[in-house]
Parts: sequence; C-alpha cells; structure tokens
Amino acid sequence: MKARIKITLKNGVLDPQGKAIGHALESLGFSGIDDVRQGKYIELKLNETDESKARAAIERMCEELLANTVIENYTYEIEA
Amino acid sequence: MKARIKITLKNGVLDPQGKAIGHALESLGFSGIDDVRQGKYIELKLNETDESKARAAIERMCEELLANTVIENYTYEIEA
Repeated sequence: MKARIKITLKNGVLDPQGKAIGHALESLGFSGIDDVRQGKYIELKLNETDESKARAAIERMCEELLANTVIENYTYEIEA
Repeated sequence: MKARIKITLKNGVLDPQGKAIGHALESLGFSGIDDVRQGKYIELKLNETDESKARAAIERMCEELLANTVIENYTYEIEA
C-alpha cells in the first residue's frame, strides 16, 4: 500500500517559512496572496495488505516520528 | 480561493532526507517500509474568484519560485 502524509503547522503556530514564501511571491509581482503556510509531504510504501493495519501503522509513525503533534497536525491517504 | 500545492522530487532524483526517514522508522521498529520520499506542501489563499486565472497564477508561482522544475514535480488542487 502507498501512503501520502501531509504534515502542517497547527493554526496559531507562527510559520516564518510560509511568511518568507509569501513575501518572495509578492516581490515577484504576484498580488492578492494571503496566509501562505508551508508543511511537509511524505510518501512511502508499506508491505501491508490490510488497510486498517496500514492506517494504524501510519498513525503510529506520525505520532512517534514524522509529526511533532504539539505544533503540527497530520492527515494521510492510503492507496492500495 | 485556496490552493494546496505538493512538490515532490522527480523519480530517479536521490532523496537522502527520505532515506533518513526510512532508516529512522526502521530503527523505531517499523518494518516493511519502502521507498520513502519527502516533499514540500504549501497552502495559500488567493484573492481570485476565477478558477482558470487562479490555476494559471499557481502554475506560474510553481515554475518561478516554489518548485525547482529540473528536479521536482508539482501538483496542486484548488478549492473555492
């Protein structure tokens, strides 16, 4: 199974990297851009055919390593 | 409109960060993990009501700043 994980900062957590991207876009002439937030995107393959087991494994990976759940949220999709 | 952009390394481009995540997961006891790839995820709001104009703007942003199109691919979704 293939998993696609998105890790984003929680609302209210400052995102200086997102702010820098927003300023860079403005200085390139893009206007009307607001609220740029940068996160992480991780793809991986799992040797697991059972979807509920795969979901449980991905959630454990996010909680233990991939996301800092104090300041970050994660969402994921699983595909056979 | 809200845009969600995923930027990933092209196939064949080495991804040491993904490899490091894979090794870290293995050392935490996760097994059967393969082909970990890390990319970037960017969310932004656009003051644009026309979807085709928003798509054109996002594509220009990706080409000019957000993605290095020599080694990276980008995909995006737009939501009203």
